[in-house]
Amino acid sequence: MTGTPQPHGDSPSASPTERTVACCQLALDVDRPDENLARVRDALERATRLGAQIIVLPELANSGYVFGDVETLRDRAQPADGAFVTELTDFARANDVVVVAGFPEFAADGAIYNSAALLDPDIGATVYRKIHLWDNEKTWGFQAGTALPPIVHTRHGRIATVICYDLEFPELVRYCALRGAQLLAAPVNWPAFPRPDGERPGEIVRVQAGASVNRMFIAAADRTGVERGQDWVGGSVITDADGFPVTGIDLGAEVIFTAAIDLADADDKQISPHNDVFEDRRTDLYALAFEDR
Amino acid sequence: MTGTPQPHGDSPSASPTERTVACCQLALDVDRPDENLARVRDALERATRLGAQIIVLPELANSGYVFGDVETLRDRAQPADGAFVTELTDFARANDVVVVAGFPEFAADGAIYNSAALLDPDIGATVYRKIHLWDNEKTWGFQAGTALPPIVHTRHGRIATVICYDLEFPELVRYCALRGAQLLAAPVNWPAFPRPDGERPGEIVRVQAGASVNRMFIAAADRTGVERGQDWVGGSVITDADGFPVTGIDLGAEVIFTAAIDLADADDKQISPHNDVFEDRRTDLYALAFEDR
Repeated sequence: MTGTPQPHGDSPSASPTERTVACCQLALDVDRPDENLARVRDALERATRLGAQIIVLPELANSGYVFGDVETLRDRAQPADGAFVTELTDFARANDVVVVAGFPEFAADGAIYNSAALLDPDIGATVYRKIHLWDNEKTWGFQAGTALPPIVHTRHGRIATVICYDLEFPELVRYCALRGAQLLAAPVNWPAFPRPDGERPGEIVRVQAGASVNRMFIAAADRTGVERGQDWVGGSVITDADGFPVTGIDLGAEVIFTAAIDLADADDKQISPHNDVFEDRRTDLYALAFEDR
Repeated sequence: MTGTPQPHGDSPSASPTERTVACCQLALDVDRPDENLARVRDALERATRLGAQIIVLPELANSGYVFGDVETLRDRAQPADGAFVTELTDFARANDVVVVAGFPEFAADGAIYNSAALLDPDIGATVYRKIHLWDNEKTWGFQAGTALPPIVHTRHGRIATVICYDLEFPELVRYCALRGAQLLAAPVNWPAFPRPDGERPGEIVRVQAGASVNRMFIAAADRTGVERGQDWVGGSVITDADGFPVTGIDLGAEVIFTAAIDLADADDKQISPHNDVFEDRRTDLYALAFEDR
């Protein structure tokens, strides 16, 4: 629900695994990095006041998206121990929250990744590098990540991070669920495409489906605004483990959604007296093979 | 569109790979097998009059679903060369159409499968046995199939068949697309579950997502009506290769949907100047392994 504080932990009926998750849908602009940072700071403060314990920010939250060329991307990129991630880590520790946020990562070897950092008060920063690059990300100089996302056992639950176009690969969403993620935190920047009247954006549909077939929560934090002529969906959504949105969807608005979800529900893969979405997979006929890490 | 004839093949701009697909959403009842058969016959006639070249009927279209016990299922089951499949084959040949329909299959060894037959004028019957059984299908005596669905190179395009709960396994939908299916024909019987107000049934959402991430058409033919106390979604849908419905959705109605689709569109997996939904898979990090057949 938009801007509505969610009670947590103080109700006699609250589950010990109930957490409040926030998705911060922000207007970002690659030409206004200082404003991006101000928006991120404001969103973190507001989400925390709303009771959020897990806060998801968009992809490339400090930089904006439409770099246009290699030089601009190199100018905006920061190391994983740079100012942005350090500030988020400090915020996570000071407020006992988990934060997930995208940023352009300047690696030690000079490569630049479209990364997301998950900040946990105990663990510090866990960085994931997007493995499926979208369109001009390939021409602007991003390198694709070379490792599957870790499933982070945070203070507030088991969380995996994927980024935007990654969500369109059911193999990856399945992998995260099979490895134990209760919540998939997905910083995204969804470019707006035409769609039939009355239809929900396909990006949201795919999030819903991915959640339901895996019985896993998904929190996708999108950005909004028009940036160098590029319009964005602004389609942030938090789904339950059945794939239904548990927050409103407010396409294009600048808004913070919060929802109280019981992460333990994602540990229950049973969907009928005789069906379990993991056990029912016919691994004798097909199987998802993945690199062990 | 409901009951609206779709022109095909006679327009100067029509693609040679354009075909009209029909989904027949029928009220079936396990206690009225004769009425089921009459409904199937009427639907085939009507769909053909509407110009359909590929006609998809529901799961267990001749029998209904709620068998309740082994004896009832054994009574309703037929061999793959029995009267029902033979009649459908004759219809397909007489009308130059492809028909896909579910039926309970009595196999030579006495096992019963939840099967679907694809009838092509040239090839005759290709039978697929559902590999993911839903709930009481397991207690009523169905055996799960032991083979992945064939991709049938029909007169009207490359079609694979899956059945109902099969659609909830992205591995299987991906397999069909990777093996070259342009259209996934899915006879289904979707039981009605509660869902939040204003939300589309999750079954339809999963069809949309499966179509879009694979850039493959999906035609899901659902049944409707209340049967022995069981309510059904009646959520038949035909999606384009972007996952958007190209017909109306008329939950619970008894209706025939037809849509003209250009199957060649499913051969184009490119979704941006630099993205291809197959090529972009990170098969170095994860891969779908399947039994070769």
